[in-house]
Amino acid sequence: MSARMLDGTAVGLAIRTELRPAVEAFTATLGRPPGLGIVLVGNDAGSELYVGSKLKSAAESGLRADLTRLPATASLGEVIAAVERLNASDVHDAILVQSPLPAALGAEAERHVVDHIAVEKDVDGFHPINVGRLVQGHWTLAACTPSGVIELLDRSGIPIVGKHAVVIGRSDIVGKPMALLLLHRHATVTICHSKTVDLPAVARQADILVAAIGRPAFVTPAYVKPGATVIDVGTSRVGDRALVESIFPAGSKRRDAFERRGALTMGDVHPSVEEIAGALTPVPGGVGPLTIAMLLKNTLAAAEQRFVKPATS
Amino acid sequence: MSARMLDGTAVGLAIRTELRPAVEAFTATLGRPPGLGIVLVGNDAGSELYVGSKLKSAAESGLRADLTRLPATASLGEVIAAVERLNASDVHDAILVQSPLPAALGAEAERHVVDHIAVEKDVDGFHPINVGRLVQGHWTLAACTPSGVIELLDRSGIPIVGKHAVVIGRSDIVGKPMALLLLHRHATVTICHSKTVDLPAVARQADILVAAIGRPAFVTPAYVKPGATVIDVGTSRVGDRALVESIFPAGSKRRDAFERRGALTMGDVHPSVEEIAGALTPVPGGVGPLTIAMLLKNTLAAAEQRFVKPATS
Repeated sequence: MSARMLDGTAVGLAIRTELRPAVEAFTATLGRPPGLGIVLVGNDAGSELYVGSKLKSAAESGLRADLTRLPATASLGEVIAAVERLNASDVHDAILVQSPLPAALGAEAERHVVDHIAVEKDVDGFHPINVGRLVQGHWTLAACTPSGVIELLDRSGIPIVGKHAVVIGRSDIVGKPMALLLLHRHATVTICHSKTVDLPAVARQADILVAAIGRPAFVTPAYVKPGATVIDVGTSRVGDRALVESIFPAGSKRRDAFERRGALTMGDVHPSVEEIAGALTPVPGGVGPLTIAMLLKNTLAAAEQRFVKPATS
Repeated sequence: MSARMLDGTAVGLAIRTELRPAVEAFTATLGRPPGLGIVLVGNDAGSELYVGSKLKSAAESGLRADLTRLPATASLGEVIAAVERLNASDVHDAILVQSPLPAALGAEAERHVVDHIAVEKDVDGFHPINVGRLVQGHWTLAACTPSGVIELLDRSGIPIVGKHAVVIGRSDIVGKPMALLLLHRHATVTICHSKTVDLPAVARQADILVAAIGRPAFVTPAYVKPGATVIDVGTSRVGDRALVESIFPAGSKRRDAFERRGALTMGDVHPSVEEIAGALTPVPGGVGPLTIAMLLKNTLAAAEQRFVKPATS
């Protein structure tokens, strides 16, 4: 048996296509498109790629997206000042500060910066008030990756109500909001992490298994109940030849790609899980494109919320 | 085998006794005690009892506590105005609005009212920003009942790290913050609810089982792994004779109490669980006294946070 591959690229494109009429209506009404302001500090190669992809996708969807670049030497005050300019901007409805910030800014820098983003423009849903509203079931802006996973499940016809969902990883960005969104959709939810005893046995209970730990090929078939849906949120850049050789046989497509480029993008899920899972997201081409689609959807939602009065309070 | 009874009354008293020196120090420094303002709307009998108990306990611990009473006919605007007077008060460091509000105020009334409580005075930890900080692990004021349960486990020498905790119930007041606090203490956490399939089997995985659903005697031995710690958060006033007779034999103490009073306070856990659990909280005398102790502890924390500069930002 070979798992059904869940095509995040296609679903992401479908979401973005559906946004167009609403983006056009907003633009016609307000005389300007919904606007996203991105703050990028430093020159991390991965961040450059992500930000480039976000800017391109926004433009393709008819949104305005502007990049504020700060040098890696920027102070915390300068980063916050950039956020506050976007808070005050009339043409920016949504703000994101690309993670990670340079380590020199300190471990608490991201939290301080996010706390300064205007709540209604916090398109990543990372501000504590947006996190609190998510917990309480009254949210507009929820973290993009977990809400993208929910969209993927829905659009792939995979039921959530009453299913046992196991989330491996408890980050603020993925694990915890993912667990809350699955809970609100009436899954029974288990959150696992590095302190979990007999993780494979716990994971094997899952009808829906979400791996979000950033450890390449960590989730092997021993973690998967036959027929389960496996969502691979991890994305690691792997340059370790021994690891790649142990996973991809000589002559395989991915091994060849490694030989050409010297590195591979790998998920948290071992490729052999394909033989036991019922459905599986590939890496790349699974969750990644959904995250960007949800960023654009959240940008539109933030813009609409600023200017369109809700029907009920 | 008979479960060890976890004495919430004794632990609650210990917490309150430990508060005394800090309350006295605050009072000596500021020239006034930490102050709690309670808003009570209407005349719900249960609420009257709870509020009376909170006022009495606060006074015993050297705190100031004031009650603002509003009639059951009060408008939402009047309730919010009462909250805003306490927000502006110099002598009140902590505010709580007793739940439930009269049904006539509408389903969203509690949320609207809580959203108006000054974040730093929100002693119940119900404001979305405090909930968000709890999720992110940066909290001062966490919901009193779940944080009381953590204190009880700690002071009873029951380890949490690496244990499987199962929380039955997903309310904003108990279930969700309880799951988050257990997760932050490195338990593997499962949240169950009315849509969970084969709830007894899921609950039987628990090393620590928390029942918070408000259904008397719902959790029977079939839900409990031998030796597990069972925390009973439910509190129901039961007047149903058939139910009481089915649980408590004629001549038993609790049956006699029912015959005298015509009703019993019962938890979510069936008394026969005592024969299989390793440790168990009684109702009454388990979680209830802890909730009040944590309310007083949070009041002091809110007062200190308003006036004492933290050592680090």
